[in-house]
Amino acid sequence: MTLKEIAKSINIELDSDIEITGLNTLTDSNENELTFLENKKYLKDLENTKAAAILVSKDNESKVPSGTIAIVCDEPYLNLAKISKLFAPNVIELDGEKPLIGNGTKVMPNVYIGKGSVIGQDCTIMSGAYIGDNVTIGNNTIIYPNVTIYRDCKVGSDCIIHAGTVIGSDGFGFANTKDGKYIKIYQNGNVTIGDDVEIGANSAIDRAVFKSTIIESGVRIDNLVHIGHNCILRTGCILTGQVGLSGSTILNQYVIMGGQSATAGHLEIAPFTTIAARGGVTKSIEEPKKQWAGFPLFEHRQWLKLQGRIAKLLK
Amino acid sequence: MTLKEIAKSINIELDSDIEITGLNTLTDSNENELTFLENKKYLKDLENTKAAAILVSKDNESKVPSGTIAIVCDEPYLNLAKISKLFAPNVIELDGEKPLIGNGTKVMPNVYIGKGSVIGQDCTIMSGAYIGDNVTIGNNTIIYPNVTIYRDCKVGSDCIIHAGTVIGSDGFGFANTKDGKYIKIYQNGNVTIGDDVEIGANSAIDRAVFKSTIIESGVRIDNLVHIGHNCILRTGCILTGQVGLSGSTILNQYVIMGGQSATAGHLEIAPFTTIAARGGVTKSIEEPKKQWAGFPLFEHRQWLKLQGRIAKLLK
Amino acid sequence: MTLKEIAKSINIELDSDIEITGLNTLTDSNENELTFLENKKYLKDLENTKAAAILVSKDNESKVPSGTIAIVCDEPYLNLAKISKLFAPNVIELDGEKPLIGNGTKVMPNVYIGKGSVIGQDCTIMSGAYIGDNVTIGNNTIIYPNVTIYRDCKVGSDCIIHAGTVIGSDGFGFANTKDGKYIKIYQNGNVTIGDDVEIGANSAIDRAVFKSTIIESGVRIDNLVHIGHNCILRTGCILTGQVGLSGSTILNQYVIMGGQSATAGHLEIAPFTTIAARGGVTKSIEEPKKQWAGFPLFEHRQWLKLQGRIAKLLK
Repeated sequence: MTLKEIAKSINIELDSDIEITGLNTLTDSNENELTFLENKKYLKDLENTKAAAILVSKDNESKVPSGTIAIVCDEPYLNLAKISKLFAPNVIELDGEKPLIGNGTKVMPNVYIGKGSVIGQDCTIMSGAYIGDNVTIGNNTIIYPNVTIYRDCKVGSDCIIHAGTVIGSDGFGFANTKDGKYIKIYQNGNVTIGDDVEIGANSAIDRAVFKSTIIESGVRIDNLVHIGHNCILRTGCILTGQVGLSGSTILNQYVIMGGQSATAGHLEIAPFTTIAARGGVTKSIEEPKKQWAGFPLFEHRQWLKLQGRIAKLLK
Repeated sequence: MTLKEIAKSINIELDSDIEITGLNTLTDSNENELTFLENKKYLKDLENTKAAAILVSKDNESKVPSGTIAIVCDEPYLNLAKISKLFAPNVIELDGEKPLIGNGTKVMPNVYIGKGSVIGQDCTIMSGAYIGDNVTIGNNTIIYPNVTIYRDCKVGSDCIIHAGTVIGSDGFGFANTKDGKYIKIYQNGNVTIGDDVEIGANSAIDRAVFKSTIIESGVRIDNLVHIGHNCILRTGCILTGQVGLSGSTILNQYVIMGGQSATAGHLEIAPFTTIAARGGVTKSIEEPKKQWAGFPLFEHRQWLKLQGRIAKLLK
Repeated sequence: MTLKEIAKSINIELDSDIEITGLNTLTDSNENELTFLENKKYLKDLENTKAAAILVSKDNESKVPSGTIAIVCDEPYLNLAKISKLFAPNVIELDGEKPLIGNGTKVMPNVYIGKGSVIGQDCTIMSGAYIGDNVTIGNNTIIYPNVTIYRDCKVGSDCIIHAGTVIGSDGFGFANTKDGKYIKIYQNGNVTIGDDVEIGANSAIDRAVFKSTIIESGVRIDNLVHIGHNCILRTGCILTGQVGLSGSTILNQYVIMGGQSATAGHLEIAPFTTIAARGGVTKSIEEPKKQWAGFPLFEHRQWLKLQGRIAKLLK
């Protein structure tokens, strides 16, 4: 879609035939992508953006670098939401290539596999599973019953996805209009899961708004875990039952999160960190190999000490 | 069913041919409904009830207003439970009208749509979805795979229900017998969802015991959210991941609840209230537009201050 | 499988033709089972084990009782993990007896029922339900849509399992290799559910690693509840929304757990205990009929008092 057509969709006249292939953040956009700036916190990233164009308010127009076309508008984020719909793929493809199923893969009855999907060898796809369009699955992976994998997601080899789990549902994103309506930010990214990943029952992993929510090889996820859009879980992370990760959480290698623990999103946790059960992480953790607990979060030993002090208030 | 037949089912002789159409609360019952009084807290509502009849203990019989027939029994709530079964509809209807599907609506393979259901135009109903009997869905709504909508529920237009979500499961209600058995209160109400509502993956919204659990237009609900029976969510409410609402919670317009926050039920939250992540609401919030946090709940600023004071205990 | 063959699979030479039927704990193993000792905490159970053989480190070899064959290895737990795979049944059975369906049982379209399964009379099995191989279900039980019951599980009579719930998914268990790989402990047990049990929507009950996760008759479980492997819930327990039980939690009769409360696992809670909403249980509770709250856990009255004291810090 040309930039001209996109601008027209939000009632802005702009004479540019640059072909825009998608939306992305200030930092990650390439020269064929459109980005936006709404939150001042990201103003620092503006000068280095490589985006073809940017939705930006009047007062920030002058800071847009020369290689990027400024699309000046009152509510950049709201306009991004409106434009995101233009890039949303079909909910289901009616046309397209039949899926390819590898040798030795068993597909049970009542399974749907979408157009253009490729499933490797020796997999088991159980009844009630839904594999959307353009999904790829490696070899020797087990998809238990009633799992849903949304379109464009990728699952590696030797994975086990337990029943009822949802991979690739839309991230929770919308912009507000002045009169209190929520305009959906279409989540045009996907979920990418590495090899040797096991995910428990009835968990939900949201697709990215841009690019990918990433679960690297060797991760273990328990039941009823919620992973927001654009999270990254590096190799060896362990998430136990009912953990909740807000969007854009980065867990480095071998982070362990205890039951019902959670993160506030847009933060990064250092390698080999342990968060005890119910721990609530609201800021990035930079030092690796430490143990944390509580909400607010303390080093585990400090938290235990603090609980002792608190209990003394009873006396 | 006549009142006589109903009374007979709990071994009470009563000569009344009044036709009872259902069960309801003291406050909401009309002149063809049966109600009950067990908890003294609701004694104040007794004098104004319009119910045709009431299950009531001997000591409260004299306070029953003259237009309402008193059915005196030892355990009114337990008897209500037993009677609730008489009003339960079939789990599935084997007979009845074939569903009506609007123009432009796509129904994928492996979908079940029940008797008497009506689905509007331009909807997408994806594989593994179950739409029970007598369900209505508006126009342009997307039902993702493996969603279950129980019988008699209503979903509006322009809604998106993500995979694995359950709408209309039975509320959690039962009466205790003296020998420790739990007798199910049949949940004979439904769930009613307005227009432009998006619900994430693997959430669960229980049907009402009487009347409706209500999700008004414009609400946004994230993944793995639990909404108990008879909750009411007014326009513009936002529930993020893993929120839990106990039964009969009323959220007024534009209440925002952070991740893993929860309510204790039978309470009401004022418009434009924000509950921070993990906040636990145990009493009604009457003043609008305030921000709250913690469990027990404090005003957000006070909670932050309190955490500072608590941390000082470590010194 | 002979002990010789098992030992060979982990590169140990051993000349024993004893037939091993399965794996089990030190305490529960019989004379045809293989056990292991890794955690010193269980050393006390070693002398009384009845196991045919044990995976044990060199330094504990001398304490193995004479009736039990010691298989000496560096990493007993890791070797147990490797061996567990040998005992894992097929994910799905392609051959075997057709399921038996009792009189009066309704099976809706798009249901899968596995080989050798037996379903009683007057049940309702709704669309999208998956009943694995060798499952037994009693009479008059309702399985709502998109429920998954894994192979070998048992559900009693008069049960109601709401939509999307998963019974028998693998418990969360794995051993670590020195180079940071997780080796799955195959969960070769099952879930056994008694009569008159109701389970809400989108809950997940994991199968046992050995033997059974047990839900006794009369239990009530709400939506989005997580029950780890090898938990035991005795008659009359009530688990409200979003409760999480870590593995090997034992709830004795009539334990009530409020919303979002949780246990740390490998602990036992006395009969008629009440845990308030959000309570976090980290140690066994031995005295029955008490009420507890908070995390860390206090007696409910003490917790309320403590919150009062904490609030005073603001002054």
